[in-house]
Formats: sequence, structure tokens, C-alpha cells
Amino acid sequence: VSGGPREIRPRQIDSRSAALDADATDPLGGFPDRFVVADPSLCYLDGNSLGRLPRGAAERVADTITREWGGELVEAWEGWIDLPVRLGDRLATGVLGAPPGSTVVADSTSVNLYKLLGAALDARPDRHVLLVDDDNFPSDRYVAEGLARQRGLVVREVAVDPVSGMDPDMLEGALTDDVAVATFSHVSYRSAALVDLAGVNRRAERVGALVVWDLSHSAGAVPVDVMATATRLAVGCTYKYLCGGPGAPAFLYVDGALAGSLTPSLRGWWGQRDQFAMGAHYEPADGIARFLVGTPPVLALAAAEVGVDLVAEAGIGALRAKGMAVTSMIVGFADAHLASLGFTLASPRDPARRGAHVSLAHPEARRISTALRTRAGVVADFRAPDRLRLGPAPLSTRYAELWDGLERLQALVASGGHLDVDASARVS
Amino acid sequence: VSGGPREIRPRQIDSRSAALDADATDPLGGFPDRFVVADPSLCYLDGNSLGRLPRGAAERVADTITREWGGELVEAWEGWIDLPVRLGDRLATGVLGAPPGSTVVADSTSVNLYKLLGAALDARPDRHVLLVDDDNFPSDRYVAEGLARQRGLVVREVAVDPVSGMDPDMLEGALTDDVAVATFSHVSYRSAALVDLAGVNRRAERVGALVVWDLSHSAGAVPVDVMATATRLAVGCTYKYLCGGPGAPAFLYVDGALAGSLTPSLRGWWGQRDQFAMGAHYEPADGIARFLVGTPPVLALAAAEVGVDLVAEAGIGALRAKGMAVTSMIVGFADAHLASLGFTLASPRDPARRGAHVSLAHPEARRISTALRTRAGVVADFRAPDRLRLGPAPLSTRYAELWDGLERLQALVASGGHLDVDASARVS
Repeated sequence: VSGGPREIRPRQIDSRSAALDADATDPLGGFPDRFVVADPSLCYLDGNSLGRLPRGAAERVADTITREWGGELVEAWEGWIDLPVRLGDRLATGVLGAPPGSTVVADSTSVNLYKLLGAALDARPDRHVLLVDDDNFPSDRYVAEGLARQRGLVVREVAVDPVSGMDPDMLEGALTDDVAVATFSHVSYRSAALVDLAGVNRRAERVGALVVWDLSHSAGAVPVDVMATATRLAVGCTYKYLCGGPGAPAFLYVDGALAGSLTPSLRGWWGQRDQFAMGAHYEPADGIARFLVGTPPVLALAAAEVGVDLVAEAGIGALRAKGMAVTSMIVGFADAHLASLGFTLASPRDPARRGAHVSLAHPEARRISTALRTRAGVVADFRAPDRLRLGPAPLSTRYAELWDGLERLQALVASGGHLDVDASARVS
Repeated sequence: VSGGPREIRPRQIDSRSAALDADATDPLGGFPDRFVVADPSLCYLDGNSLGRLPRGAAERVADTITREWGGELVEAWEGWIDLPVRLGDRLATGVLGAPPGSTVVADSTSVNLYKLLGAALDARPDRHVLLVDDDNFPSDRYVAEGLARQRGLVVREVAVDPVSGMDPDMLEGALTDDVAVATFSHVSYRSAALVDLAGVNRRAERVGALVVWDLSHSAGAVPVDVMATATRLAVGCTYKYLCGGPGAPAFLYVDGALAGSLTPSLRGWWGQRDQFAMGAHYEPADGIARFLVGTPPVLALAAAEVGVDLVAEAGIGALRAKGMAVTSMIVGFADAHLASLGFTLASPRDPARRGAHVSLAHPEARRISTALRTRAGVVADFRAPDRLRLGPAPLSTRYAELWDGLERLQALVASGGHLDVDASARVS
């Protein structure tokens, strides 16, 4: 199974004192202090939706605004111009296991997915199938749908298990030689099921299909190691485990051997060779820069640098180990204390087969999620139809914080404290 | 001629004392103080490339980072979720002469242009021509080229005068009933030539073609008045006259009568009806929101709000009047003091026919631009092949600042102070 150190069997953390002990010996124990914590009593278990604010990010953005924009004005572009590539390099080398020059940060995940799916389709003009799975993040499926409709292609949908996720064998009969491009998520946004990147990539390679991976729920939490897994095309967001800030620009990765042969149909001056020569016709820049389009949001990129650097400093191996430990702690707690309250595990039980969050199914998940926030000081999130997602980001969460959150969840539901809340839809 | 109050004939400002007098009676005279000025000796004549930093923008972003992201964490999305539409509404009503619900702010200008051109092409499936002009901003042409290539369409290019720009009559014979969509800039990025929006729109309407306008060099400087000019589709950036910050998200406008019938092929969850229901298939949101795609960069949007509000407060009529005055001042100065140094006017002479910047052609424009910055404390910019662009943003520039910049330009070139500078390419 790809995706993590195989030897680690996290010990069971089944009491508050065990959680405190785990914090005391946590090799990442210093990292939660590197984040701004406005309310120490809050249990923040939604780092997989919006990563916490790193200390230094506010200062970094303030400096970009005041000293650079305000002070240097347009001349500050000398330093900003390569920000999408520079930040991409840090992410590539520090987080993705990719070489420099393979990754850029700009645009949203959906727009980046569109670019890569489109370019990959152009590279397989004689094939007519775009392969997706029925558990992928909706936006990814809308992007695929829009492209297929526009180009007169067929979207083929693989059914995967909503809890255990996709096994490469499930692709038998679907990932065939009429597939131009497939798109899957490395870690399921709902179940956290982890897909065997290398296994799926091997199957795709055999039939000559390209795969565009969405790494939104794995980058910064689970090793991706694009080189070792032969991952050729990927996108992902930077506002979850990478702590880049709300709506932070997304990344886009292309294997060096492909970068020169793919050209996005969505093209703009930031992807133009010799951009400021203002040539009359499009000529793609060498390599990964051709996947840039318009002027990137500098303030948002500046903020994102801080989080990416923190993740790289912590190291993906240590983050993966802690991610397995915290999710195992949730599973153990759920078995012991939540099953009797109507919760069922909706994530893989084997820590090697899941990312850094855990989903619990409960018929009242929406009300529970709301009540946790408004009455118990615990932030987790609801995902339709009946999932409570717990995402204790390994970089910023203490074991004791997670323990307290789980205890409050138990107490809330045991007391029926969620039953009378307004269950109107929430935003996040 | 569309584009401005017809009665205004700016008086000639032909001395420093006349410039000081003009500042003393300037109805917008208080606005330059609303911007951060790090170096009062600098003459900033590049507001058409990157608008100055409004006071309050740093504080606004700091609050978004520290109080909202840091303090409210994922729950802050309750307030962020409608930022692209809320800011779009302010821009629509305060700047574009458009109704609420017609405009969103998100993504880059090039990505927005791609969305609208693509959707407009879908609405004219029986036509095969995409019309552009040879003076449009290169990125716009790359976007058009990429779409046409992908869809097997023809790009037809109208030649326009590089100084006086496009007259609607030039479209005779080119804007014919085989044209699906045309895209032009309202104000030329090089010459500042102002196109008769209403005139071109009428011609397009007659042949059943759609026009997507790029308002990047007019929004915040020249009245657009999309209702009166029957402008149906438009995009534009917010980092020039709207002072939204480096790479600030761009806007996208769609006439209400069209919004329900166009659907972008670039689609994502932010354009989905009932986004958080996470429906399996794409169903476009009502109206303008369907043109959103991925999660928008909140920090960049927060910064952009401040500039848009300032422009709306100043009022587009007053900004247009001052824009005509400052550009007339440049033209008068050029006639009197720069023509003999080898400069020729490369913008329309009639203030009613140009936007808020002026281009001067000079064989040594690149060296002069560099020397102005490094030796004379004047920021203007160079545009290939031989243009010096002077963009004294009406909202943030004092007449005396412009006067000083022009005098320094004259002194620099008269003394040959630019001749020995390194003319290597600059970024902005």
C-alpha cells in the first residue's frame, strides 16, 4: 500500500492523560505553537477544510502590501513575477516529492483541473472517454462534465465504495484503451479513503490513458511522492493542510517529460514565452510556466508561502505518522464511546488506507455539526448526506485538543444537546 | 462620441503654478491623500499598470487575516461566501453603470474572458468566426486563439490604427453575419484610444454577433455605462484604476437578459446551484453566479474592496473629467517641450477619444523608461516597441506631481541622461 511509512503502528491513545503524554513526546509538538490560536478552548477539527493561520502570515502579507505594493509600487513586480513558480518549487521539493520546475501555484483547483484535463484530452485526440468516479469531489466532476460536453466526449463513471474508496481493481473494465483521461482524488474528500496512486497510474499507463490527480486532501498530510508513484499530472488546493489561507491559489503539477508536449487551450500572457515582448500570437513558454494564464493574486500567494514553508519544515513523513496517530485515536474513541450513540465509521479502518481525516456517519450529522460549533466549542464539518468529518490537521493540532473535542462530541450527543438546533444548511 | 462628458474642455495647465492652481481647485483634490505615499518625491505615472495602495487596504486585509481567518476560522466563510457577488455589485452600481446581480469578481481577466468567449461561442453554434483586432492586449488575443484552435474556428483580425484606434466603420466587411463573437478593448492598452462602445455594439447587434469587452483600461477612469451603451458581456481587471492590489481578482459582467441563457464550459462548484448540496451533476446557479468556478482568493478580494469603494465614492464623472485634464496636460507639455526631443504623440489628440493615459513614441523609449525610474524618480512604463506610457491615475495623482514628472522627463532626455543605461527588459 502506498502512502506512508509501513512500520508505524500508532499506540492507542485512549484517555486524556495518554493524549497529554503523546503531546509531550510528539516530534511535531512545537508546531501547534507556530499557529495563531485566538480561543484556546476551541477544538478545531476542520483543518481539512481551512487550515489554521500560521504565525507570520499576517506579517508577511502586511509587508507585501505596505513595503512592496505601497512602497515599491509597480517595480515590486521584479520580485513578484516568479512567485507562482517559486512557490511551486517549494511545494514540489518540500511536499510533493517533485523536482523544481514541475509545479506552479495560481488560479483555483477547478481552473487548474480544467487546464490539465483539457491539455491531456488534446494529447489523446483519438479517444472519446473521460473517466471519473462517483465519489470524487463534485467540482472535479463538474469540470470533467463541462469539458466532455463541450467536446462531445463521454463521461464514464466508476462506482467506488463510499467508505473504503477506490481499489485499482475496480478500474478493470472501465479504464480501457478508449479512455483519453481519467481524474480521481488521491484522498476522498468525504471518506478520507486513500487511493493507491502507483497502482492506478500503472493501470492507466498500460492502456495509454493519462490521469489527472486531485491532491487537495493529501498534499501536506500524506506523502504523494509523484516521482516514485509515477504521477504525471496533478492539481490541488493550498488552503487545507498547506494552511495557505481562505481561497489560496491552487497548485498544478506536470511531469517534466510531459510538460513540453502539453499545451493548455486556456492560455494567456503569463504562459507566453517572453511575456513582455507582447508578441501578437501565442507561443507557449518552456515547461510548466505555460500553464499560467493571467496575472496571479500576489497577496494571496504571499500568504500561502508561509504555510507551505511550515509543512516542508515539519516534513511529510512526520506529518503522515501523526496523521495516522490522530485518525487512529478518533477511530478508537468512536469504537469505545460513539458507536453506542449511533455513529458508524465511514472511513477506512486501516490507517494506511486513509488520509488525515475521519468521517463518521450519523443520521443527525448536520444538527450535531451545528451544535458542536455553537454549543460545544468544537469545529468539525458536515458533508451531505449524513457525515461528520473530523480533520485534526497533524501540523497544528495537539492530541489533547482532539481528545477534548471527542469528549465534547460524546457528551453533546449523549445528552441530546443537538436535537433542538436549527439544521439549516451551513456554508463550510 | 461615447465615453465622457461632452462639455468639458480642460483649460491648459502649462506651468507648475498652473498645476498647483489646478490642485487647489480640484474636486478630487482630497483623494490623493487617501493613498499611501511612501516617497513624496516620486512621480508615479503608472497607475494604469498598478494602482496605488489605498489607505485602509492593509488594515482591511489584516483584519480579514487575523480576526476572520485566525479568529473565526472556517466559520468566517459565512461572511466570505458572497464576496465575489458583493464586490461585483459594488463595482456594477458604483463604477460600471450596471445593475446589482450582473457582475462577479473572481479569477483573472484572461480566465474570465475565456469563460465569456466560450459561453458566447456556444450561443452561436452555427457561426465559425471569432473576431479580434490587431491592437488588442496580447493576452486577450491568446485567449481567443486558444479557444478558436480548440474548437476549429477561424480568428479574423481587424487592423486598427495603432494611435487613433478603432472606429466602428473599420468593422465594415469584418463584423459580418458569420461572426459568432468579437472581443475588443474599450481603451487600448498602448495608445489609450477609446472605442465607441455603443457604436460597435449596435453593429454587432445588427449582424447577430456577441461582443465581449475588455474594460481593464477604462473601469474606474472612463464611464462605461453598460446599460446606455448596450454592452452585454465584459471583463476587466481591478488592479489598475480600481486600485485592488497586485494581481487582484478580475471582474466579469453579463447583461441580465443573457445571463440565464449562457453557461460557461469552465464550470465548478462555485457556479453550482445549491453548492453545498454537493450534487453529483452540474446544474448552473441562477444568473451571474454560474460564472464562478473554484474557491475565490478571499484575501485578495478583501483588498480589492477598498479600491472599488474609493472609485465609487469619487464618482466616474469626476474621474473622467480629471482624466481628460491630466492627459491634456501631458499632450500640451509634449507639444511644447518634448516634440523637439524626438517624442511623438502616440495617443489620440482629442481628449474625448482617449482614456486616462498617454503614450509617447520615442526610439529610445525603453532606455528612457529605465532612466526615469532609476535616475529621475519618475515611474512610467515602456511598451514594445517604442512607447513610453504615462498613466497619471486621476484618483491618486496631483497635477503638480504630474508636472514634476514631465519636467524631469524633459530634463533627462535633454541632458542625454538615458543614453548609457542598460536597456535590458523590465518586468512591468
